[in-house]
Amino acid sequence: MSERKITIAVDAMGGDNAPSEICKGAYEACNEFDDIEIILTGDTERIKSCLQSHPRIHIEHASEIIDPDEHPANAIRKKKDSSLRVAMEMVRRGDAQGCISAGSTGAIVAGGVLVVGRLEGIDRPALGVPIPSMTGKFSFMLDVGATVRCKPENLLHFALMGNVYSRKIMKVETPDIKLLSNGTEDIKGDETVLAARELIERKDNLNFQGYIEGNDIVYAKADVIVTDGFSGNIALKLGEGIMQGFKSLLSEEVRKSFMAKAGMLFMYPLIKRLWSRFNYEKYGGTPLLGVKGAVLKAHGRSKSPAIVSAISAARKFIEEDGINLISREI
Amino acid sequence: MSERKITIAVDAMGGDNAPSEICKGAYEACNEFDDIEIILTGDTERIKSCLQSHPRIHIEHASEIIDPDEHPANAIRKKKDSSLRVAMEMVRRGDAQGCISAGSTGAIVAGGVLVVGRLEGIDRPALGVPIPSMTGKFSFMLDVGATVRCKPENLLHFALMGNVYSRKIMKVETPDIKLLSNGTEDIKGDETVLAARELIERKDNLNFQGYIEGNDIVYAKADVIVTDGFSGNIALKLGEGIMQGFKSLLSEEVRKSFMAKAGMLFMYPLIKRLWSRFNYEKYGGTPLLGVKGAVLKAHGRSKSPAIVSAISAARKFIEEDGINLISREI
Repeated sequence: MSERKITIAVDAMGGDNAPSEICKGAYEACNEFDDIEIILTGDTERIKSCLQSHPRIHIEHASEIIDPDEHPANAIRKKKDSSLRVAMEMVRRGDAQGCISAGSTGAIVAGGVLVVGRLEGIDRPALGVPIPSMTGKFSFMLDVGATVRCKPENLLHFALMGNVYSRKIMKVETPDIKLLSNGTEDIKGDETVLAARELIERKDNLNFQGYIEGNDIVYAKADVIVTDGFSGNIALKLGEGIMQGFKSLLSEEVRKSFMAKAGMLFMYPLIKRLWSRFNYEKYGGTPLLGVKGAVLKAHGRSKSPAIVSAISAARKFIEEDGINLISREI
Repeated sequence: MSERKITIAVDAMGGDNAPSEICKGAYEACNEFDDIEIILTGDTERIKSCLQSHPRIHIEHASEIIDPDEHPANAIRKKKDSSLRVAMEMVRRGDAQGCISAGSTGAIVAGGVLVVGRLEGIDRPALGVPIPSMTGKFSFMLDVGATVRCKPENLLHFALMGNVYSRKIMKVETPDIKLLSNGTEDIKGDETVLAARELIERKDNLNFQGYIEGNDIVYAKADVIVTDGFSGNIALKLGEGIMQGFKSLLSEEVRKSFMAKAGMLFMYPLIKRLWSRFNYEKYGGTPLLGVKGAVLKAHGRSKSPAIVSAISAARKFIEEDGINLISREI
């Protein structure tokens, strides 16, 4: 455990439950970790009204908020005093080593590139997300939406960055790395994927295992799944959609039918155990990799435990010196 | 109901349960539909050993079989006497108006292009698949693997072909057509998807409704979902994988735990009803659109009901004059 203090800027105004759950999460995280300092950015009055005071939590006033439906890059450029931009400026200036927001994904990506800045040698950033599976094991998939179409070099960088994140944050010793494709045979994939495959194969320090197809994501048949932001985004949202759809279908049926209700009494421990495998709060936070700071997006519906989990991931990434490790790989 | 006879060639040797379930399906289909004639292609002896004879079922001998792991185009070119190629040659010569196979998807696509031939004006074919949803409604998604990366024009053709299939086979009066993308906002999509969007929007005869994202597939928020074969394949396999994963997880738990077993007794009618919403046999058969015949791929694990369903879809497509309707749209 390092002795240096870790400072994380937290956008207090982003997400569906801001600022109350964000403030609560920041407070809980400070109680959990002795070595962090948190700076909440946003409307001072609103933050104060719901924040339990803590010696290691400070407030940096920001008068604006970026709405989820604003054009991301325009919003970041124009709203200089928005809670998100103020948090990112702290990272740029070195006043914080990382920042977290549950706000607009697009604005976080835009801010990561335009405010925090890309790491040298990285052409495009990637959003990585720990995805749950039937087996309880998590894979780390990137990109899920930062870089819509990729060049082969981008996919190589994603593989290198994913490898670092999987090793350092998810504690996988030698991560299996696979490229998402339309089949596992060598002849599958389009030109970009084929060219990326060749580039990745040549890297001796990567444990590359070829292609993974859609159905094998379900069984976490790779520690790191590399894909472009278009396919990755579709896969992530489809997976989330099916899980949520099942959940609501089941609760609706249980509400309507006595038989289903009786069945649920028996099945409850099983259902609870199954859902716990898919608890995204376990590795909370979607890191934006390839920028000069530990920038993490928390789920838009985050409650305080998800914020604690995102802060914990940012803290670990900073403590493990993730940014420099990635820089050295590129 | 038209008076003319419909002839369908069926590859008796393709799929996990060939030839027995294929022969059984052909027999059942002939009993169900008076106006069809079926030609089973494959090893005469093996077909005869499991076929219940029927005056409208004939056998066309083929001495070879294409294996699922052969290079699709090479296999189609070299194995001139394979059950799949022989079936497709019948379509090419006009001896059959359509053909069905539960064999290798790649070989069916290759055969569709190389043997049956593309429709004039169609640059690339598409595999379309009726996909189930939480609501019980089906969407028709194309392409799911025939054309890995597409030009905007290909996606326009897929929209036009999907529109015909949805109207004629799935009986949707005015299908809602959407493009699969990484979000619903206008700024989403890469260059190809954006250009395709503009092309599709200009077609007055299409009821185009913009983008659909991954999670909305689950609720069938479009009648026709247009995408390239790369993303479509990943989405299809991921969806299938999650469904199968849940099913096996549930049966395993029920086998292991008394509580879960007791719960299942109560929940059985509910579970059965839910699964029936996802029964792919309902619209069995994945049409290869853009070729000069009703070419359908049946699921590799097809048992006789899925074969009947695929034959029924091919019959309806021929009866509705689907090929000419598509030709006129292009």
